[in-house]
Amino acid sequence: MRHEPYRWPDGKQSAACFSVDVDAHAPWLWNNRKQFPSLLSHLEQRHFGIRVGIFRVLDLLERFGIRGSFFVPGAVAEAYPELLPTLLEAGHEVGLHGYFHELVSEISDAEFTAALECSIALFERQTGRRPAGFRSPAWEMTPHMIAELRRCGLYDSSLMGYDHPYTIDGVTEVPVQWTVDDAIYFKFMGGGGDHWPPTPPRPIVEGWIDEWTVLHREGALFMLTVHDWISGRGQKIAMLERLLSTIRAEPSVWFATAGELAAHHAATQADRFRVAAEIPPEIADHPARKGA
Amino acid sequence: MRHEPYRWPDGKQSAACFSVDVDAHAPWLWNNRKQFPSLLSHLEQRHFGIRVGIFRVLDLLERFGIRGSFFVPGAVAEAYPELLPTLLEAGHEVGLHGYFHELVSEISDAEFTAALECSIALFERQTGRRPAGFRSPAWEMTPHMIAELRRCGLYDSSLMGYDHPYTIDGVTEVPVQWTVDDAIYFKFMGGGGDHWPPTPPRPIVEGWIDEWTVLHREGALFMLTVHDWISGRGQKIAMLERLLSTIRAEPSVWFATAGELAAHHAATQADRFRVAAEIPPEIADHPARKGA
Amino acid sequence: MRHEPYRWPDGKQSAACFSVDVDAHAPWLWNNRKQFPSLLSHLEQRHFGIRVGIFRVLDLLERFGIRGSFFVPGAVAEAYPELLPTLLEAGHEVGLHGYFHELVSEISDAEFTAALECSIALFERQTGRRPAGFRSPAWEMTPHMIAELRRCGLYDSSLMGYDHPYTIDGVTEVPVQWTVDDAIYFKFMGGGGDHWPPTPPRPIVEGWIDEWTVLHREGALFMLTVHDWISGRGQKIAMLERLLSTIRAEPSVWFATAGELAAHHAATQADRFRVAAEIPPEIADHPARKGA
Amino acid sequence: MRHEPYRWPDGKQSAACFSVDVDAHAPWLWNNRKQFPSLLSHLEQRHFGIRVGIFRVLDLLERFGIRGSFFVPGAVAEAYPELLPTLLEAGHEVGLHGYFHELVSEISDAEFTAALECSIALFERQTGRRPAGFRSPAWEMTPHMIAELRRCGLYDSSLMGYDHPYTIDGVTEVPVQWTVDDAIYFKFMGGGGDHWPPTPPRPIVEGWIDEWTVLHREGALFMLTVHDWISGRGQKIAMLERLLSTIRAEPSVWFATAGELAAHHAATQADRFRVAAEIPPEIADHPARKGA
Repeated sequence: MRHEPYRWPDGKQSAACFSVDVDAHAPWLWNNRKQFPSLLSHLEQRHFGIRVGIFRVLDLLERFGIRGSFFVPGAVAEAYPELLPTLLEAGHEVGLHGYFHELVSEISDAEFTAALECSIALFERQTGRRPAGFRSPAWEMTPHMIAELRRCGLYDSSLMGYDHPYTIDGVTEVPVQWTVDDAIYFKFMGGGGDHWPPTPPRPIVEGWIDEWTVLHREGALFMLTVHDWISGRGQKIAMLERLLSTIRAEPSVWFATAGELAAHHAATQADRFRVAAEIPPEIADHPARKGA
Repeated sequence: MRHEPYRWPDGKQSAACFSVDVDAHAPWLWNNRKQFPSLLSHLEQRHFGIRVGIFRVLDLLERFGIRGSFFVPGAVAEAYPELLPTLLEAGHEVGLHGYFHELVSEISDAEFTAALECSIALFERQTGRRPAGFRSPAWEMTPHMIAELRRCGLYDSSLMGYDHPYTIDGVTEVPVQWTVDDAIYFKFMGGGGDHWPPTPPRPIVEGWIDEWTVLHREGALFMLTVHDWISGRGQKIAMLERLLSTIRAEPSVWFATAGELAAHHAATQADRFRVAAEIPPEIADHPARKGA
Repeated sequence: MRHEPYRWPDGKQSAACFSVDVDAHAPWLWNNRKQFPSLLSHLEQRHFGIRVGIFRVLDLLERFGIRGSFFVPGAVAEAYPELLPTLLEAGHEVGLHGYFHELVSEISDAEFTAALECSIALFERQTGRRPAGFRSPAWEMTPHMIAELRRCGLYDSSLMGYDHPYTIDGVTEVPVQWTVDDAIYFKFMGGGGDHWPPTPPRPIVEGWIDEWTVLHREGALFMLTVHDWISGRGQKIAMLERLLSTIRAEPSVWFATAGELAAHHAATQADRFRVAAEIPPEIADHPARKGA
Repeated sequence: MRHEPYRWPDGKQSAACFSVDVDAHAPWLWNNRKQFPSLLSHLEQRHFGIRVGIFRVLDLLERFGIRGSFFVPGAVAEAYPELLPTLLEAGHEVGLHGYFHELVSEISDAEFTAALECSIALFERQTGRRPAGFRSPAWEMTPHMIAELRRCGLYDSSLMGYDHPYTIDGVTEVPVQWTVDDAIYFKFMGGGGDHWPPTPPRPIVEGWIDEWTVLHREGALFMLTVHDWISGRGQKIAMLERLLSTIRAEPSVWFATAGELAAHHAATQADRFRVAAEIPPEIADHPARKGA
């Protein structure tokens, strides 16, 4: 029993990635797919991202010299056909994020496959190239999804089994982490569906800096995830500036896109940190469970 | 794809507005409209606003030389007929806020129209002038409401699609934002209906100062919303003093009422930042949605 | 419309009160009155108060030279017959707090009256004197309860309509406030019934110090409420030390028991700040309500 | 009425214990025992502990020269047969923690007994020695469980009736405390089942340091509980470093395993701080209760 260190390129000590999930109105479409409400508030909040927030995030990345990874649902790319080309031109990566940000627990295997293929075709049409990676809406995965990504040659960025890249059933996983996601702290929409208020961002960013400090020391990956309609607002921009000022001051960090991280893993360590997506038989067939 | 800067008058770099929603006992009347409970606790907490809290807020505004925008439900103006004249005499703006703080999702279009007209008539009777603006209870809007405000020549201050004024279906929108509202952090009434405890105010005001700092830099609007029965309490007065000390030290901020912001927008940029309240057909008629 | 300053004795600028609700196992008895569970965890957490916590609170009060007001349910006084005499000997006030910490919304008027009379008789038996005040379990009141307190000549300390003493239907009210209560932030029992985790105490005590600072400046009453089984734990004792060090450094604060505050109010200002417990007819009979 | 000081060995002023609940996938097995879902997210988050997190915790303990107490469900020891020997070799204590982390409120007395005996047998098989202690999943206990621990000669570490060791129905209790547990603040899994977001760790560790400071002054026990899959993440390692740096700087703290604390109590003070697990008849048979 022992955790081996991950190996980074060019003598780098650790890695960092700035990822953006451009959900926009896609979750609203999904949640209201049976019937559109006449209420405007949620939709306007989400539109803020594509009208204002994403430009603040792009400006932030430019100021800090960072290429980000933008995961975009098909329906969003379709509604804003300039989006993917604009992001690619600025040097960023674009990846898949479902078609309607459809939730894994609400769709069949066949529906997942249809949404995946539909998204790939759209991305190819809009950008002239095939996307390299996928991030699951709400960060949930199934063995079927893993198998489909393997079939399509895509990396995944949705799971949390390590804090550096690993391989799950032959698919490269560039892991995420809840505590360095903006939505769980700051998403607040009103209307009675919120379960907690926004957390004040300064204590959060102090935690994020602690997170990076330890992950850097441990040689791991710091994978940040933000949403432009949430983090494009004032105080979240301020907290991201604090965080990035700290990380950028450390030259031994490899700041990479999720695609670059996945390619590095596949090329150098695909056989290390390999895990199975299926539940092993010794657990699945445990006698105590059978009796339960 | 690009977000253009908003234009402020007189060489100002950004704008700020201090708005107060004087809900008082109106939500209590609405929520208990079928049957009044014999329980006194909630009603007494709300009465604190009109007995004490509003005077602390007015004193605060006077000390910082700020004219605020007070949005008052009709039922509150009716119960306290001196309220609107007192506020206007002190140089503040008064705006509409429903009649019983009736929730949008619980009323029909006709009921909204009736409450709106009833409120306008009352305001005219009490103040001798027609109100210029409307803020929706709980910050929800429908296309019908937008159309009614347009018919009545009122601005709206309830949505969040930009962080500066914009135009929605011909109505001027002076946008709000959840993270700079006091109620979501500090409203706590007891009796089993609360979903979270009050957030400590110091981390919140640090976030609000960050929010203002970035919005000022970006040339946007900082729209603060408080409730006198919540923010008229001790530690909230302390946090508002910290916030206003910071903002007032910056001379290039245009501190204006929502009405002044709306008038500026209508006069200078009504054709910029125009959006539609209806869902566009390319989204509404999306083939994938039809199949869903 | 204007809020008049409250008048304190002896040239004092403001008042402060340290109150303790000694709920102990009474809420457990009430919540499980139909059937006692075999689970020990909650009961042991509550027993911590009477075994350890209350001694830490008493030691704290002694170190800061403060006489507190302890509100004790009848069932707790009955289970620990030394409790009331011990508190009185140390110079503290004891007041009523229901018999089983029975919740107002779960009992009839007659049941309230029975619990009240039963509690008064017990307190007289155990202490040889009649209690002066009452605090409602969970801080809820009805017009019937107000009338009963008036009949028994008791003050109340359960409502929040001002932040200094006032008179409600002839009863002296020594008001409380949710944001300076420990239970809403720190009560956490496990077992699936908690709605939020404990708040870190340092940001809370910074808010409490802000609260006191503004209330002192405004000439109001700072009414703190703690529970020995919650605030007798380590980090809560630390926060109370920070708070009391600040307040005790200010000589113009009148640190009084709730009973002393009530007596001062009744003797000097019972006719000021008078409010009605009943809903006034202009609200109760509002035409719009009738139509609703 | 008076709380006596607890007596520590060798002139120590207070005690501290670092405990780790190695739940791993056991709660997942228990919660999904009727049917395994195909969703991978939760399981991968839990696997992080055994793949990475536990090594970070072990490294932390080694750096600070602390022997910890690891409570391990039977199903986890069974799935990772090297785990217990590895922990023992490094000088740590291993204790029981249910077989499937089965929740007390969901099993019968007989099922508890079966899980206990099955766990003891497994631990003996894997380590060659009998475990000394037990910690209940989710920190719940019943009189039956207490009786079974007494029969098996085990100490318990699940209740909170004091903040130093005590004796409950003849069983030594090494008490825990919710506010110094990591899971209630930091456990967040996604998928819709979370009731609150992670708390920022810096304010928490400031509270933990306050907690220790007062408990040390009071001569009590500081019992920390962490989970490797939660606290093996970056910012939690950072906060534990801050906490342990503070405690380790104080030589008069007895840093001990739960087993050592239990042995000390049994040998020196088993007759002090004795409480009953059963509800005393004067409460159980209270006339008022009978009438309820």
